[in-house]
Amino acid sequence: MPTLPGQLTPAPRLLLGPGPSDAHPRVLAAMTTPLLGHLDPQFLELMAETQSMLREVFQTKNPLTFPISATGTAGMEACLVNLIEPGDVAVVCTMGYFGNRMVDIANRCGAQLTVLEAPWGESFDLQRIRETLRAVRPKVLGIVHAETSTGAQQDISQLGRLCHEFNTLLVTDCVTSLGCTPVKLDEWEVDAAFSCSQKGLSCPPGLAPLSFSPRAVDALKARKTKVRSWYLDLTSIMNYWGGERSYHHTAPITMVYAIREGLRIVLEEGLEARWARHVRNHRALKAGLEAMGLTYTAAPHCQLPQLNAVRIPDGVDDVASRKKLLQEFGIEIGGGLGDFKGKVWRIGIMGHNSRPSCVLQVLAALESVLLSAGVKLTAGAGVAAAEEVYATAA
Amino acid sequence: MPTLPGQLTPAPRLLLGPGPSDAHPRVLAAMTTPLLGHLDPQFLELMAETQSMLREVFQTKNPLTFPISATGTAGMEACLVNLIEPGDVAVVCTMGYFGNRMVDIANRCGAQLTVLEAPWGESFDLQRIRETLRAVRPKVLGIVHAETSTGAQQDISQLGRLCHEFNTLLVTDCVTSLGCTPVKLDEWEVDAAFSCSQKGLSCPPGLAPLSFSPRAVDALKARKTKVRSWYLDLTSIMNYWGGERSYHHTAPITMVYAIREGLRIVLEEGLEARWARHVRNHRALKAGLEAMGLTYTAAPHCQLPQLNAVRIPDGVDDVASRKKLLQEFGIEIGGGLGDFKGKVWRIGIMGHNSRPSCVLQVLAALESVLLSAGVKLTAGAGVAAAEEVYATAA
Repeated sequence: MPTLPGQLTPAPRLLLGPGPSDAHPRVLAAMTTPLLGHLDPQFLELMAETQSMLREVFQTKNPLTFPISATGTAGMEACLVNLIEPGDVAVVCTMGYFGNRMVDIANRCGAQLTVLEAPWGESFDLQRIRETLRAVRPKVLGIVHAETSTGAQQDISQLGRLCHEFNTLLVTDCVTSLGCTPVKLDEWEVDAAFSCSQKGLSCPPGLAPLSFSPRAVDALKARKTKVRSWYLDLTSIMNYWGGERSYHHTAPITMVYAIREGLRIVLEEGLEARWARHVRNHRALKAGLEAMGLTYTAAPHCQLPQLNAVRIPDGVDDVASRKKLLQEFGIEIGGGLGDFKGKVWRIGIMGHNSRPSCVLQVLAALESVLLSAGVKLTAGAGVAAAEEVYATAA
Repeated sequence: MPTLPGQLTPAPRLLLGPGPSDAHPRVLAAMTTPLLGHLDPQFLELMAETQSMLREVFQTKNPLTFPISATGTAGMEACLVNLIEPGDVAVVCTMGYFGNRMVDIANRCGAQLTVLEAPWGESFDLQRIRETLRAVRPKVLGIVHAETSTGAQQDISQLGRLCHEFNTLLVTDCVTSLGCTPVKLDEWEVDAAFSCSQKGLSCPPGLAPLSFSPRAVDALKARKTKVRSWYLDLTSIMNYWGGERSYHHTAPITMVYAIREGLRIVLEEGLEARWARHVRNHRALKAGLEAMGLTYTAAPHCQLPQLNAVRIPDGVDDVASRKKLLQEFGIEIGGGLGDFKGKVWRIGIMGHNSRPSCVLQVLAALESVLLSAGVKLTAGAGVAAAEEVYATAA
C-alpha cells in the first residue's frame, strides 16, 4: 500500500433524492454508543423496544416485526423467499422499476408467476386485480405501495381484504412510504411488508424493517421445503427476534441503535403530524416545481408527497444539471431509473428532510440551474409559489 | 404507544467474546459523518479507497473485492450461492459450528454435497482432503479458516494449490481470521473468501468483506442459471462495486465509512505488527488461563491466538458465571455453541481489543468469578502468569 487514504472529510450534502435521505443528527449521535454484545440482556431490551416502536410505526400488532440485517431490497427478498416455495403460484403487479425487481426476485424463488403491468406513473385499480386473483388463485400477491421510480402511490387500503377473499397473501413494498405516508398493516390486512431505514425513518441505509401477519407466519410454518436463503430464513431468525433470543447471525448492533433512535423521533412527533408535514411540504414543493414549468410523471390521483418525480425539460442535460446542483449547491436529487433514465428527476423530501428549508433550497437551486441551462422561466417564480403555499397553509 | 423508550444509555461493556468485539473509537467517530448518496462521486471515491485497502488486508490483487451489505454469514451465503448451481458437486469440511453452517447453506444452494468431518477442536490434514478431492472431483470445496466455535485454526496455506490440481474452487471462511492472523489470498490461491467487520477490523457488525479470484469470477460468468439470491447476486453487484458503479441496492453508507476507518487503522499499524500483537497477547492470556487450571478445546498445534476457547471447570455454572462477569465486571465472554454449549467459554482478544489491559482485566475478573464459584486456585496466579509473559516477551 503506497499511501493510505486520508481522514474522512466529505464536502457536505443535502440529500433530496430518492434515498438515502439525510440521517437525523440524533441518530448519528446514537450510533457513537459503544457496542453491546448481540446476546447482552441490555441489547435484548433494546431489541424489544425497537420492535415495539416498529409495530407502532407499521400500525400493527404482528409479533413477527423486526428489522432485517441488510438494506431494503433484502426485505423484499425476505418476504418473497419465505412465502414462496418453488412451484407456488404468485402474482406481481408492477408499475415501475421496483415492481420489476419484485418480478425478478419472485422468479428466482421459483414462483409460477403472473405479472400484471400498469404504465409507469399510474397505479392499479382493484377491479383488475380482482379479475386476476379470480383467474390465477395465487398464494402470494406482491405490489409496491410507493413506487420510488415514478413517484406513484398504490392505494392498498382495500387490497388485503380482496386478497383474503381468494386466500392470497398480500406482500407490500413500503420502502418509500413508511414514516412518510400512512401505512396501516392491520387495518389494511397486509400480510407481509418491508421497508428501509434511510428514507422516512431518517437513519443510514442498512436495515429493512419487516412485518409478517399471523396468516403469513402460518404459511411460513406450513412450508414443505427449507427457505432457500439461510441469511433471510425467518423460520430461524424469528427465534432470535422472537421470544427465545437464540443466536442466528450477529445483529448489526450500531444500526439497531440507529433505528431505535429514528423510531423514537418518529413517535415523538406522532404519525398523524408526520404524515401531515409530508403533505404540506409536498404541496409547497409541487407548487414551486409547477411554477417552473415542470410536470409530474405520476398521475394526479396518485402522487406521493415524499417522492416528487418530474420530467426533465426539453433540451436540458440530465447529468450536467444534477452535477451542477451537487457541486455548486451541495444538493443531491435523483435521476431516472429504467424507462425513465435521462428523462426524469426525482426529488425526495422524506423524514427529517421534509421541511420548508429543504423545499425552498432545492427550488432556488434548481431554478438557478435551469436558468443557466437556458430554460425560459421567471427567476424566483418557483420559490414564490412555494412561499405562498406556506403562507396560506400555515 | 404508552411511553416511549428513553435515550440510549447502556452500561459500558468490554467485549471479549467471539464477536462483536469493541469498535475502535475512531471508527465510531467516523460514523457520525453525515451521509453521502450512494452514487455521489465522493462516495464512489470512498468505495475505491475501501476496496484498495481491503485488497491489501486480504493480501490479494483480486479486482472483485468489496464488503457485502450484510453481516458475516451473508458473506458465506454470497460465496456459496454464487459459485454453486443446483446439482453442482461440492465438498464442505467441517470441524465445528460454522463448518456445519456452511453445510446447511451449501445444501440450500442445491449442491450435491459431500461432508468431511473432523472432531471439534481439531483441524484437517491435507492428505485426507486430497483423497476426497480425487474421489469426488467437486466444483467447490468450502472450509473454515478460523473456527470460532472451537478456537481451532485450519492451515489453508497449501490448500488452494491442492484444490487447483483437481480443478476445484476453494472457498474459505475468514470471519475470525481477517485482521488478527495471516490471510494471504493470492499466495495461498484462495478463490473466494469472506469475513466480517466486527472482529479483527474493530468495526460494528454489518458488513461482510468478500473477495473472488479471477478463477471464481470465471466460474460465476459461466453459470447457466441465475443466482438464486437477488440481494447477493455478484453478477449484478459487481457492476456497482466494479468499474461501472451502476445502481444495484443502496449501499449502507455509514458502515462503509466505518470499515474504511477500520481498514486505515489496520494498515497504519501494519499487518505483520498486528499479527504479532495478537500472538503476544494470546501467549499472555493462555499462560494466565492455564495457570488457573483451564484447558483449551483446540488441539495445541492449531490454537487461534484471537479466539481462546477453554473448558468450563467441573461444577462451575456457565450462565451464572458469565452473568457475574458481565454484571459485576462489565466484561462479556462467549458461551459454547452446538456441541460445546454449557461446556466451553470463548474469550476473544481481537483487533483493537487484543491488548494487555484487556488480557489482564479478563484474567483478573475470571479468577474472581471462579474463586466465588468455589474453584480451588491461587488468587492472582492467572494475572501473574500473564504478567510474566509480558515481562519476558516485551
